[in-house]
Amino acid sequence: MERSTGYRIDELARRFNLEARGDPSGVIRGVAPLARAGSEHLAFLANPRYAADLARTHAGVVVLRAQQADASPVPVLIADDPYLSYARIAALFEPASASAPGIHPSAQIAANSRVDASASIGAGCIIEAGVDVEAGVTLGPHCVIGPDCKIGAGSRLVANITLVTRVSLGKRVLIHPGAVLGADGFGIARDADGWVKVPQLGGVRIGDDCEIGANTTIDRGALEDTVLEEDVRLDNQIQIAHNVHIGAHSALAGCAAVAGSANIGRNCLIGGGAGVLGHLDVADGVTITAMTLVTRSIREPGVYSSGAPIEENRAWRRNAARIRQLDAMARRIQALEQRLDTLTKDRT
Amino acid sequence: MERSTGYRIDELARRFNLEARGDPSGVIRGVAPLARAGSEHLAFLANPRYAADLARTHAGVVVLRAQQADASPVPVLIADDPYLSYARIAALFEPASASAPGIHPSAQIAANSRVDASASIGAGCIIEAGVDVEAGVTLGPHCVIGPDCKIGAGSRLVANITLVTRVSLGKRVLIHPGAVLGADGFGIARDADGWVKVPQLGGVRIGDDCEIGANTTIDRGALEDTVLEEDVRLDNQIQIAHNVHIGAHSALAGCAAVAGSANIGRNCLIGGGAGVLGHLDVADGVTITAMTLVTRSIREPGVYSSGAPIEENRAWRRNAARIRQLDAMARRIQALEQRLDTLTKDRT
Amino acid sequence: MERSTGYRIDELARRFNLEARGDPSGVIRGVAPLARAGSEHLAFLANPRYAADLARTHAGVVVLRAQQADASPVPVLIADDPYLSYARIAALFEPASASAPGIHPSAQIAANSRVDASASIGAGCIIEAGVDVEAGVTLGPHCVIGPDCKIGAGSRLVANITLVTRVSLGKRVLIHPGAVLGADGFGIARDADGWVKVPQLGGVRIGDDCEIGANTTIDRGALEDTVLEEDVRLDNQIQIAHNVHIGAHSALAGCAAVAGSANIGRNCLIGGGAGVLGHLDVADGVTITAMTLVTRSIREPGVYSSGAPIEENRAWRRNAARIRQLDAMARRIQALEQRLDTLTKDRT
Repeated sequence: MERSTGYRIDELARRFNLEARGDPSGVIRGVAPLARAGSEHLAFLANPRYAADLARTHAGVVVLRAQQADASPVPVLIADDPYLSYARIAALFEPASASAPGIHPSAQIAANSRVDASASIGAGCIIEAGVDVEAGVTLGPHCVIGPDCKIGAGSRLVANITLVTRVSLGKRVLIHPGAVLGADGFGIARDADGWVKVPQLGGVRIGDDCEIGANTTIDRGALEDTVLEEDVRLDNQIQIAHNVHIGAHSALAGCAAVAGSANIGRNCLIGGGAGVLGHLDVADGVTITAMTLVTRSIREPGVYSSGAPIEENRAWRRNAARIRQLDAMARRIQALEQRLDTLTKDRT
Repeated sequence: MERSTGYRIDELARRFNLEARGDPSGVIRGVAPLARAGSEHLAFLANPRYAADLARTHAGVVVLRAQQADASPVPVLIADDPYLSYARIAALFEPASASAPGIHPSAQIAANSRVDASASIGAGCIIEAGVDVEAGVTLGPHCVIGPDCKIGAGSRLVANITLVTRVSLGKRVLIHPGAVLGADGFGIARDADGWVKVPQLGGVRIGDDCEIGANTTIDRGALEDTVLEEDVRLDNQIQIAHNVHIGAHSALAGCAAVAGSANIGRNCLIGGGAGVLGHLDVADGVTITAMTLVTRSIREPGVYSSGAPIEENRAWRRNAARIRQLDAMARRIQALEQRLDTLTKDRT
Repeated sequence: MERSTGYRIDELARRFNLEARGDPSGVIRGVAPLARAGSEHLAFLANPRYAADLARTHAGVVVLRAQQADASPVPVLIADDPYLSYARIAALFEPASASAPGIHPSAQIAANSRVDASASIGAGCIIEAGVDVEAGVTLGPHCVIGPDCKIGAGSRLVANITLVTRVSLGKRVLIHPGAVLGADGFGIARDADGWVKVPQLGGVRIGDDCEIGANTTIDRGALEDTVLEEDVRLDNQIQIAHNVHIGAHSALAGCAAVAGSANIGRNCLIGGGAGVLGHLDVADGVTITAMTLVTRSIREPGVYSSGAPIEENRAWRRNAARIRQLDAMARRIQALEQRLDTLTKDRT
């Protein structure tokens, strides 16, 4: 990824408050992985898995921790958190997704909706009644914004996103294609004859600086709103049910799912494919590892897991069959202990 | 959620066949949660988790079971199933999603398709050849209806839904955005050189009163149809593979998945993230808990589960490592029992 | 599924290099399941689960293995792999999805993009800048092709598909509705104040003959590309994170997920709902069973599994509770062995 604009290494050091070691006069025009970077590229070393690539790198400069600096054959920028510093520097080289203000002729805006003059509304977008689109918003092609939604300043909906109804986005929210916010929560009550739909009368409120991945779904609340506080980060294909509340700065990896009315704290990390059952509370600062099912409220910060380890299939079959016997095994151990106690007592 | 129309408590009691206790003259204009309801709101108490909210409620009236009536500081409506009665009452206060009959000028309808004059076809909809859209159907914006589909009377496709081909919807079917029905089933046969695609020649048949969640996918059958009987309720992001058959009144929670040719009975409840392997039968009245994998046919109604419990990560690591030793542990227990038997026998 | 064109049984035998037994003069006009086929249908028997249907079949001809031929009441075609031969024959009876070359008037093509004259661009498609659409490509309705994408000759995007940016498709790639390729990978770095987005500067490269299911997501790489080699087959609702590499001829079933920078070999089979953690390697020829979580690299071909078996809920509760005691149980077994050793030694 290269841009014509270049930055001298000492200029990057100054701008990002990093210490440069080695010749600071090189000009950096892009970023690249350690193993493939050339002399015009900045690379970084954060994951020790890739430490072996450092000795062989041809990068123009490497962002890394102080203790790894001596191992570098090329100039370095010292960072406490190389990945974080890399993230900030790499933004210099990101192609701008420039969208000219204005409404594409094929877009359709309901008469009583308001679109700020600085917003960019893409081809095929449909904005229904009672919508408020603030300054600097970008809607990519084919977004559908249903009634009574609000899109906060500087937000960007990449393409093909549906906000169904009563969805309010904060400022600088980023949503990826295929995401659906504000669909009916899954509320059904059982009658003698079948299911009766429970009206879903709430909305969705998304805080400032949230990011929502491709094909992720966030249902609107049954009575109150489904809420993401500020700076919540959702990966792709996540399911957030009605009335869920997720605290600020929490991040959920792909395919995670949170059932209705669950309450996730701030600064939580939920691994890929993990699930949280309905009506549970998860404290601030909790990490849930991938594909774990949270079946009870978690009151203390920490790391939590469930699941059985992967094994070669034949060994797994033998061991998994024994799980069905576990309670019986535990009783047999107890019986053995008692028999042995009796036996020992008899002998003394 | 409030409407201008109000209903006296005794009027609600009559209309929904409930017993009122306390002053029946209050006027209800909306519904709200127990903890936040005001004097113009109806609230309900079904989940005992929220019983503590009852004593503090300011609701105009609360729908609850007889045994909780005395604990209410406000008038009540007595119901055998408060959630069900609430669902019916709340529908009074749901904003109508009125769609005027007619075809939006930007919609495109193939010449040999039939759209009933009472149907509402939204902006950007595309209806291909051989489609039949019955009376009172609503297609929201950007729906794509492929060849040879039928949409039964009173059905509503909210927005941005794709029916690929040979999809037949019954009456009053409700589909949420991003759902894809009738895509190719995943059929591949292995050749020496790679995969050969197996033609997917069937369709999809959805019964009356089914609901299908956002971003849910239902593939069409390989030879026969994939079938949902009437009143099946699917949450978001569910995957239904080709030739699956789901019996009437079954409900699947978010992210559940059913593999090819599985046969799910009537009145089943499948928890979130649960999976059913291909070609299995699941009897009527079976409940599968969240994230369970069904690996064998289930012949009897009941509740079924799999999975290991969540633990603090360090404890989990210790215990999970032992799962790999389970078969060996079982053999060691057996050996201990035999040694102890021998020892005991020797002594006598 | 019937076509007007018919094929004599001996003509099918010649064309697909199969041995016919029984009267070869019958004319086949379609395919159907064994249990429902009539005299104009070809059926097949591959899965022994359906062997009982053979004795009762009224098919015109059945494709099956030699050892089952004698059990057939009707003519047969002998195949080493009946499912594979069936797949090839059934293609004769598949309705052509004919798309006339040309650009639908409602489609929008950026000035500096190139669309081959033989391509078919459907209603509502939007092609942004720097896109190259090769010969014989079909884009169904409402596809959005973002900047700098390439669509190889003969590829087909069924409908409502989003290629976000820098996505390159090989030849004959088939993508089903709702799929999103090239969205931002999920890269975030933690600052004291919250999350900092890591620019996603790579692209997506999809090899020839790949198939990508409905609502599947494939993110673009952070620095290098996310890659599917040729003939990779992805079912619906699969999540492929940034910088994943999947080897040729691998197939992933519905709802599988692969985390960032994982490297899956060639000829792998990943079961439904299975997960692969980030930065892992999976060797060629590995099979992962459904809902398994791969938590370590796999160096040898073979079949691998994780997960606990399904049980009736009360039994499951008892056994699952014991998983939490497993480490303690193992220690108690060891203690018992030591006590018994001591006891036995004392006696001798």
